[in-house]
Amino acid sequence: MAESSAVPTESDAALERGITKLFAVLLAGEYAAYTRLIAESAMAPDIASRVAIARMASAEMGHFDLLAAQLEARGGDPIKAIGDYVDVFDRYHGATNPKSWYEAMIKAYIGDGLAADFYLELAHMLPDDARAVVEGVMAETGNSAFAIAQVRGKLAAEPVLRGPLTLWGRRLLGEAITHAQWVLAAEDDVTDLLFQGTGDLQAVSRFFDSVSDRHAQRMADLGLA
Amino acid sequence: MAESSAVPTESDAALERGITKLFAVLLAGEYAAYTRLIAESAMAPDIASRVAIARMASAEMGHFDLLAAQLEARGGDPIKAIGDYVDVFDRYHGATNPKSWYEAMIKAYIGDGLAADFYLELAHMLPDDARAVVEGVMAETGNSAFAIAQVRGKLAAEPVLRGPLTLWGRRLLGEAITHAQWVLAAEDDVTDLLFQGTGDLQAVSRFFDSVSDRHAQRMADLGLA
Repeated sequence: MAESSAVPTESDAALERGITKLFAVLLAGEYAAYTRLIAESAMAPDIASRVAIARMASAEMGHFDLLAAQLEARGGDPIKAIGDYVDVFDRYHGATNPKSWYEAMIKAYIGDGLAADFYLELAHMLPDDARAVVEGVMAETGNSAFAIAQVRGKLAAEPVLRGPLTLWGRRLLGEAITHAQWVLAAEDDVTDLLFQGTGDLQAVSRFFDSVSDRHAQRMADLGLA
Repeated sequence: MAESSAVPTESDAALERGITKLFAVLLAGEYAAYTRLIAESAMAPDIASRVAIARMASAEMGHFDLLAAQLEARGGDPIKAIGDYVDVFDRYHGATNPKSWYEAMIKAYIGDGLAADFYLELAHMLPDDARAVVEGVMAETGNSAFAIAQVRGKLAAEPVLRGPLTLWGRRLLGEAITHAQWVLAAEDDVTDLLFQGTGDLQAVSRFFDSVSDRHAQRMADLGLA
């Protein structure tokens, strides 16, 4: 990092650029997640569910604020970041528009999990200060118990839904990987940042493989085979 | 309070009942405010405005969570509290449905201010522990600067709106007082709690007079005469 040597090198500058851009991308993702949860809250079947989804949405705004403060400290503009990066997240959400409350709950749980995988993968490739930010954002995700209870309760009452909801859960993974690759393809600075530590172009595909394994566990958590 | 004497008296029990009910009413109010801000966010003219209203909505959920924890600690049920008390707040919001983003901003600022007046009036009539809760809820309201800037900017660009927006701001006060009186009329425990300290039936009308004075100042803050 720049602080550790008297004269910042080109690679220091590239690292700083990559981190700033990464925070901008993550912030746009939190904003998109908030916006979608708000839209999906209209499907909530009762007051308890509306409160639960409101808490999830507010947690996303908490992450957003954390990233906004960091981005501003680095000279970035949170509003511009949304304008620059929200489209790819909106495309993901548009391609995975839940048709029922239970699809929305599966998406919230699976999406939170995929985001946590991504953040975890990020965290150990970042310098200490940036890692602390990403871990802070990750630490707060956790309305999982509610989503699991909702989905398992529904499956117990209507076992016939297991098939279609399992397909839905699988589709979410495919769409998430597709859209994440679009981000990586478009943002070299971010890709370099994420995979520099490995010095290995196959690191990207190994990352997506490990995400698939963890996705299978989350499907089992929800009672989907 | 019950803790301060060996045998709880009937008035201790009434006080505890009043405080629990008050927290339930306030919590329903925060939930209603959140729900309305979410609905009104669809009118936001740009990304910065959408972010600002999302932050306001999340702040309401923060207050909601604070009150929910207190209510649960007293044996209450936040979800039931919403069911019991949200209607009067929904009637207020239904009677003051903004037709434009600027009406929504005025309502957010005026509504936040009226809530703060009410909380302040409450705070000094409550025992220490309950007062700390109410002050905690009050302390976090504060997205005022954004609303003021939005309304003043619009008035500078379109001075012809000053008349209709002033009428709108006045109507908000009238509706808030009407609906607050409905709550007080329906909930004797809460009314007793609020005005016991004064031993004076005119205290209610003096409270509403002082609210009117502060409302006039807030109208001036917004550039409305």
